[in-house]
Amino acid sequence: MLGNLIGPEIKELIQERNFAALRAAFEDWAPADVAECITELPEEEQAVVFRLLPHAQATEVFEYLEADAQQVVLKAMGQTEAARILNEMSPDDRTALLEELPGAAVVQLIQLLSPEEKAVAQTLLNYPEGSVGRLMTPDFISIRDEWTIEQALEYIREHGKGSETLNVIYVTDERGRLIDDLRIREILIRPVATRISEFRDSQFVTLRATDEQSTALEIFRKYDRNTLPVVDSEDKLLGMVTVDDMLDVQEEETTEEMQKLGAVEALDDPYMDVPLMELVRKRAVWLVVLFIGQMLTATVMGVFERELASALVLALFIPLIISSGGNSGSQASTLIIRALALGEITLRDWWRVMKREVASGLLLGAMLAFIGFLRIVIWAQFSDSYGPHYLFIGATVSAAVLGVVLWGTVSGSMLPLILRRFGIDPATSSAPFVATLVDVTGLIIYFTAAAVILRGTVL
Amino acid sequence: MLGNLIGPEIKELIQERNFAALRAAFEDWAPADVAECITELPEEEQAVVFRLLPHAQATEVFEYLEADAQQVVLKAMGQTEAARILNEMSPDDRTALLEELPGAAVVQLIQLLSPEEKAVAQTLLNYPEGSVGRLMTPDFISIRDEWTIEQALEYIREHGKGSETLNVIYVTDERGRLIDDLRIREILIRPVATRISEFRDSQFVTLRATDEQSTALEIFRKYDRNTLPVVDSEDKLLGMVTVDDMLDVQEEETTEEMQKLGAVEALDDPYMDVPLMELVRKRAVWLVVLFIGQMLTATVMGVFERELASALVLALFIPLIISSGGNSGSQASTLIIRALALGEITLRDWWRVMKREVASGLLLGAMLAFIGFLRIVIWAQFSDSYGPHYLFIGATVSAAVLGVVLWGTVSGSMLPLILRRFGIDPATSSAPFVATLVDVTGLIIYFTAAAVILRGTVL
Repeated sequence: MLGNLIGPEIKELIQERNFAALRAAFEDWAPADVAECITELPEEEQAVVFRLLPHAQATEVFEYLEADAQQVVLKAMGQTEAARILNEMSPDDRTALLEELPGAAVVQLIQLLSPEEKAVAQTLLNYPEGSVGRLMTPDFISIRDEWTIEQALEYIREHGKGSETLNVIYVTDERGRLIDDLRIREILIRPVATRISEFRDSQFVTLRATDEQSTALEIFRKYDRNTLPVVDSEDKLLGMVTVDDMLDVQEEETTEEMQKLGAVEALDDPYMDVPLMELVRKRAVWLVVLFIGQMLTATVMGVFERELASALVLALFIPLIISSGGNSGSQASTLIIRALALGEITLRDWWRVMKREVASGLLLGAMLAFIGFLRIVIWAQFSDSYGPHYLFIGATVSAAVLGVVLWGTVSGSMLPLILRRFGIDPATSSAPFVATLVDVTGLIIYFTAAAVILRGTVL
Repeated sequence: MLGNLIGPEIKELIQERNFAALRAAFEDWAPADVAECITELPEEEQAVVFRLLPHAQATEVFEYLEADAQQVVLKAMGQTEAARILNEMSPDDRTALLEELPGAAVVQLIQLLSPEEKAVAQTLLNYPEGSVGRLMTPDFISIRDEWTIEQALEYIREHGKGSETLNVIYVTDERGRLIDDLRIREILIRPVATRISEFRDSQFVTLRATDEQSTALEIFRKYDRNTLPVVDSEDKLLGMVTVDDMLDVQEEETTEEMQKLGAVEALDDPYMDVPLMELVRKRAVWLVVLFIGQMLTATVMGVFERELASALVLALFIPLIISSGGNSGSQASTLIIRALALGEITLRDWWRVMKREVASGLLLGAMLAFIGFLRIVIWAQFSDSYGPHYLFIGATVSAAVLGVVLWGTVSGSMLPLILRRFGIDPATSSAPFVATLVDVTGLIIYFTAAAVILRGTVL
């Protein structure tokens, strides 16, 4: 809340090396604000300022630091300090830190952990990347069915200190298998003599540690939960995942989808952190595929070379016409891809989509055709570059624009559905992909319109 | 968890009108699963099946229904039933339902509410669309500073029943002003004789009811909270917002950003719900702007008509060349727009971005130039459409591809930064926008390369 406001003052304190005042200023800040302030400092100052923090605040601030800043600070730390912070960190944040580091560093850091935390860290890192296990924290509270609420509260008071959240309490059987989850609300609103078994409803939703994080996101969304338990194949409770991690999962998925829409293979790291050669490789694949596809345009134009030679004026409008198709196609595919991703439409709706898109394509195409016609007619009044038959040229261009926009709209909207039908990610039909597809057919539409309309006059 | 598996059996029960069995089957289901099942039914069956649910389950299931299904079911309900459900719904879910309905229906439905709930509903609907107030629930628990934990727990037990969540308990002063928020964990792990004032830390983050929902999302992300309090301008506690609503806010923002990237004005409703004419209008704006911009290509081509006439072969490669620029530009702008949105890069990084993109553009351009050259040389062995000077033609096309891809990459990456610099949403530099920009300049690059390389041979 304060964060951004205090920037300049803090910078001054750092420049003046007034560390006492800085430490005092930080005392009242929320850890997230201190972390933001440190993240924004130049790298060489991050560790200096972090070291000012009192022990009690340091771990929490560290958890809020961005990955880059965490690594800088960690490198500058003494072994004792690093050990303390790593042991105190919540296991899921620690996993997130360790999975960004090179293998050798991970091995070294894990040696700093207490035997107990070491076991936890290794277990979590053993789950595959992108799995629920990597987001999980094993610090949950589980109670027994036959306890009263009073007993449960007593137990929580004694054992809850290590738990990240007490929003949900789990009920397990004697073998550690999950038999229910209780929102803390359900415990707190009942008389303390009530037994857990009297009111729990056995309705719970679980995740597997090996589930994909995107599956977890779907389940969180569907069931509107804040916390979900994670179990193994024998229903033994392993840990829990909280919904705030899902914001990150959703953001990552979005990034991937957008990059696909831009015809780039998903980068796995932030733009600046991807090595140049990998960046080039992830773009080259689609660029080369599209380039080779686009070569067909040269072939198509070769077929119509005779028409082109007798009416060179036709060449002038080629970029205009094919790009209208590409643009309307990009629009349609973007809309449909997103609607599919949101579940707003399904394959069964294809005919309704088709009808809407044919109508949209006709209207949009007519609009552009009219503008194009006007442009040619008006231009012809001031220049004779379109020759005496400029009205026919105008008609040809208009007809082609209408046809190409209609075709772009229809193919842009149907392509994602067809891809989905064959189990391919609809986002593959990116704007450049649709544009390339429409370019080739757009030329055919254009020259066909020309052959029909201009026969006997220009051709 | 079960949901999708039981589909066919349930359909059978519905077809057989075996309502007793259906009701029994639903009894053990989670409300979200029942809701999913009902949402998937044809409209005419949704209300029939919903009416089977016992009262206790109905409201909760109703809250999980999708907006469309909610409206269908509500319309088919008797007034008493509708009144009961609307009164029982949690206020934030009710706001979400009401804000989707036409004004007249809202007025009618609000009349069904108890005086108390009516006041709540009206207050919430009075906050502007897209504001935090619309997501807020006023059912919070607030305690006093001087109470002991025992007193607090007793108070919660008596008054917590109406509260949606007890994950966070608020501390207010005698005038209802927020002075702290306590995660339930902090209360539960301490001895019951402890006074609230002894351990609370006065560190809390608040939202205003009039804040934009996107602001709330940023704050939730920064502070990693599950619940945030909402206050008015005098710090009086009005309600709270939970993080699960943020998943929807994030999703809506993503949709808007993607639609912009596809050169469509953000649709405010699901694709199928947007009236056709609005759909057309939201696409027409950009399509017309781009079409008019693209007309410049005809002008540019007109300037080079003489070159085109003496070497018609040049026309064949126009679509190939300009589309390479468009595609590489789309890739670059997508990457940069997303990196800006995620805060991975800022304006200050422009030079680093430029260096990366120049390098990428040169590498990618060289790759495509090589493929293009090969294509022309190989083709020339089997056909004489490129004439005796095909090596020069090949060189011209290669040089143009290299130049256009480099130009596309650089302008695609710099444009979002320039837009951001002038306070315009970077996502405006959509793939079609960049493609159009690059098309016009791409032609100039191509014909300039031709003029230099082909002088004395073909030209």
